Amino acid sequence: MSEKKSPEFLRIPRLVMESKFYEILVRREFSEVKAKTCAEIFTNNSLDGVYTHGVNRFSRFIKYVIDGDINPASEAICKSGAGCIEQWDGQRGPGPINALRCTDRALEIAAIQGMGCVALANTNHWMRGGTYGWRAAQKGIVFIGWTNTTANMPTWGAVNSKLGNNPLVIAVPYQQEAIVLDMAMSQFSYGMVDFYHLKNQQLPVPGGFTVDGKLTTDPGEIQKSQRILPIGYWKGAGLSLLLDILATILSGGLSVAGVSQQKAESNVSQVFIAIDISKLNNFKAIASAVQQIIDDYHQSLPEKTAKVLFPGERVLAVRAENAAQGIPVLKGVWDEIQTL
Amino acid sequence: MSEKKSPEFLRIPRLVMESKFYEILVRREFSEVKAKTCAEIFTNNSLDGVYTHGVNRFSRFIKYVIDGDINPASEAICKSGAGCIEQWDGQRGPGPINALRCTDRALEIAAIQGMGCVALANTNHWMRGGTYGWRAAQKGIVFIGWTNTTANMPTWGAVNSKLGNNPLVIAVPYQQEAIVLDMAMSQFSYGMVDFYHLKNQQLPVPGGFTVDGKLTTDPGEIQKSQRILPIGYWKGAGLSLLLDILATILSGGLSVAGVSQQKAESNVSQVFIAIDISKLNNFKAIASAVQQIIDDYHQSLPEKTAKVLFPGERVLAVRAENAAQGIPVLKGVWDEIQTL
Repeated sequence: MSEKKSPEFLRIPRLVMESKFYEILVRREFSEVKAKTCAEIFTNNSLDGVYTHGVNRFSRFIKYVIDGDINPASEAICKSGAGCIEQWDGQRGPGPINALRCTDRALEIAAIQGMGCVALANTNHWMRGGTYGWRAAQKGIVFIGWTNTTANMPTWGAVNSKLGNNPLVIAVPYQQEAIVLDMAMSQFSYGMVDFYHLKNQQLPVPGGFTVDGKLTTDPGEIQKSQRILPIGYWKGAGLSLLLDILATILSGGLSVAGVSQQKAESNVSQVFIAIDISKLNNFKAIASAVQQIIDDYHQSLPEKTAKVLFPGERVLAVRAENAAQGIPVLKGVWDEIQTL
Repeated sequence: MSEKKSPEFLRIPRLVMESKFYEILVRREFSEVKAKTCAEIFTNNSLDGVYTHGVNRFSRFIKYVIDGDINPASEAICKSGAGCIEQWDGQRGPGPINALRCTDRALEIAAIQGMGCVALANTNHWMRGGTYGWRAAQKGIVFIGWTNTTANMPTWGAVNSKLGNNPLVIAVPYQQEAIVLDMAMSQFSYGMVDFYHLKNQQLPVPGGFTVDGKLTTDPGEIQKSQRILPIGYWKGAGLSLLLDILATILSGGLSVAGVSQQKAESNVSQVFIAIDISKLNNFKAIASAVQQIIDDYHQSLPEKTAKVLFPGERVLAVRAENAAQGIPVLKGVWDEIQTL
């Protein structure tokens, strides 16, 4: 196959995107406050370069609303509390709004108890997990959170998908911004596999199996086998399983197996842990301790690239570029949004 | 190279091993209580099949005591508390004793607050992280813990080691026992690379680089390059960095960079988080929720093996076999222990 023709990109100014999302959401029975919050999250995810969970996902989000899998009128409510842990029910409301509410609640608990944990059942896809990590870290709070998903990955040594890719987020305040790790338990998402296939490129490292069970970097082969690879083989498979168990038992919600029985990927379970480091005796020394770790990390001798980056380091440059030049959007994606 | 001659194994009864360790530890100025606890941990790790952090590591542990890197007389002390978080100082005491003390303290906090976090500075290698996960889970408590280490792994795209392999442990009660994930951030330890090299076998998946920067399954090539691979390439590298940052700032102790400046791998930082699920409203439903997840997981269709196992599932069979037949120990290892 030859390289395909490059698709046409538009550059949409941030405020244009946000007001377009807002207008559609209000029309789809989101309250003004919720529409504003949701439009902001989808726009900011795009601004930060996470298009897959921003502008490229917006139409699907609205489809879930139309199909009744997301209920715009629902609010997450606290079901019960036990010390610094609270259990919430998302009542199938919009995932980003529920997740933001529970992040903020975890921060409130942490402000009193040092650490707070909110476990959320019956919610929907939170889009970019990093959203909540950045939110907490920019307020000076350490964040650890994860979600389960529908089954989309076989465990190591198996051919059928029983595990979710269950993204895990860890965020730490750094300078005025944050270090944010936001990683799914699969080496690549199917979205990324499709993206490489469209570009007619091989994956940079093996990302799944052929139908004959051989590790491969060929995205087309992985599309055929539907066997993506857990990070670290058996290790990421184990971590995925444990994250699902924790999300399920802490929230009292559905497991990956339960989510997989829904007609769409809904009613997922999530965990939000906040740690208020300003309560710690060594608080004044923390910023310089983090700086020392990053300075040492940056002394890594790169094999090929100019510099080794920490998780989230690339985001600020992308954010600045997209703020200045507009957010790059495939023309087809933007055209579809106009029809919603 | 031809297959090398199989080394000679002994089968040492559990009680023989434990009393030998106890006798040596008392001679090395461990109190009777500490000697008993340490001897039990080293023996139980071996009983469970984790020989690398049991009998095979005991001589090195004693060497650290002789060299003054581990101080048998030191006790971990609480430096300060903030709600459900406490900061402890291990005072360079024996790692397993400090880790057990902090695990138990995290459980005590969780019994009151629902969740407890103990962050421990200036401690020593905890040997098998799973020890503390099994400990908590067998008491019905969820456990999340990790440690930093000396720098022993390059980040993705780098050639020199700036990251630790920073093992992470997550444990959940299951039936009368536990599901215990105990995973380092490297795909294989150097110990495992050496083990495959001794057996003259290739690693089952790529575990590092050649000196020319190519991914390889050849243990000899990795020994030459000293470039082991993070799990999931850039993902495990990122997780390793974040675990180090958290252990450092929560404990107020040394980072991987700081530990790497010690003359031996000492003064590491660790985190112990316990969650008392008996405090949760859905507690009575938790055992069956975990069972459903495991039952579904076990319905994975294996590609080659008879059955797909969850993390820790293999341990009970090994434990039973070693209890019945004695713990397998290389003759050379056991001979060396007699000289301590």
